Amino acid sequence: MEKSKITKAVLGRLPQYLAFLEDVSAQDIPFISSTKIAKELSLGEVQVRKDLSVVCGKGKPKLGYRTGDLIKSIESCLGQSKLTPAVLVGAGKLGKALLEYDEFEKYGVQIMAAFDCNEQVLKIHRSLEILPMSQFQEFCRTHDIKIGIITVGEGSAQAVCDQMLASGITAIWNFAPCKLRLPEGVLFLQENLAVSLAYLNNQLLDQKRKEKEEI
Amino acid sequence: MEKSKITKAVLGRLPQYLAFLEDVSAQDIPFISSTKIAKELSLGEVQVRKDLSVVCGKGKPKLGYRTGDLIKSIESCLGQSKLTPAVLVGAGKLGKALLEYDEFEKYGVQIMAAFDCNEQVLKIHRSLEILPMSQFQEFCRTHDIKIGIITVGEGSAQAVCDQMLASGITAIWNFAPCKLRLPEGVLFLQENLAVSLAYLNNQLLDQKRKEKEEI
Repeated sequence: MEKSKITKAVLGRLPQYLAFLEDVSAQDIPFISSTKIAKELSLGEVQVRKDLSVVCGKGKPKLGYRTGDLIKSIESCLGQSKLTPAVLVGAGKLGKALLEYDEFEKYGVQIMAAFDCNEQVLKIHRSLEILPMSQFQEFCRTHDIKIGIITVGEGSAQAVCDQMLASGITAIWNFAPCKLRLPEGVLFLQENLAVSLAYLNNQLLDQKRKEKEEI
Repeated sequence: MEKSKITKAVLGRLPQYLAFLEDVSAQDIPFISSTKIAKELSLGEVQVRKDLSVVCGKGKPKLGYRTGDLIKSIESCLGQSKLTPAVLVGAGKLGKALLEYDEFEKYGVQIMAAFDCNEQVLKIHRSLEILPMSQFQEFCRTHDIKIGIITVGEGSAQAVCDQMLASGITAIWNFAPCKLRLPEGVLFLQENLAVSLAYLNNQLLDQKRKEKEEI
């Protein structure tokens, strides 16, 4: 089945739906309507209906969605039935912050290991080891890693990216503030934390401008 | 002048335009065309024209944009002429990673101070002091802080948010994975780092599904 492309905004709401549906399912409620879901989660009805239609098509008239089917569809979208293993390179503050972040598994991804070339950080972090780069390629091949997260500085990002591609990784999430050269077919996401703040600031400045105009 | 709302994607590209235009301006080139900008920055011409029209309207036929005007407009959008002061609460790994992030000032925001209730982290971090929460309200009032960044855990996020609002902050960027109760009129952005990774994973799973179907 060809699924319509799911946006980040919809993906972001799926764990919330899932948690609620699991509650519902535990109470042996076989059907659930989008109206009920919207009400319980304080979301708009139209939004809930749109979100669920992307994930699971339309519900049955008057009955709504079969709870079990909806749970399965959401889990499949999030890839929760089989977590995708990922690795992270660059165990500085940002890298460690991501390692500590508890939400990734809810979204279907498990960071299996972190790597760094700095000998000083090669200690155990929580249950995760920070491994030396010399073990990178073998680790990725052994665990069939497909997702690589780059949290090194601008200067080393391209080299790390090249190593990832040479180790079988096909999807890259880059936090380094620089452009990377990539062959076609590689899935790529550039993260720019500053843009969110810029967006908030832009709205704030807009508000100020309007207040001035009103005076 | 009422500006059309600038999207995050456009904002994200503005510093790149600005850096290039400052080069152009240093060479005393009075006009620049969107074609030339697109070529130099390896961007699509249509995209560049759309981006710049949001920021600065249309250029002059055959001449393009007046370099100086374009620079001023972009700086104004980014709020670079006067940096907006922000504070951060929660100086754990994520908080410190944000404090180390060099890109915020390019986007018009300066993190003036970080606060934490944990006595152990109250040391100097780079040129920034990590201050105790007892000084929070006074600091915000003195420096007329309007933007607050929440990087504490789920358990303390609402309390921190309430303190921010009580201290005159009107725009909040929340990294804690929880909903916050906010009065109307507060600008708010929820950051969910996991969603980017979920999006990449979803595309990866889609690719796998398609490969299977082709076999």
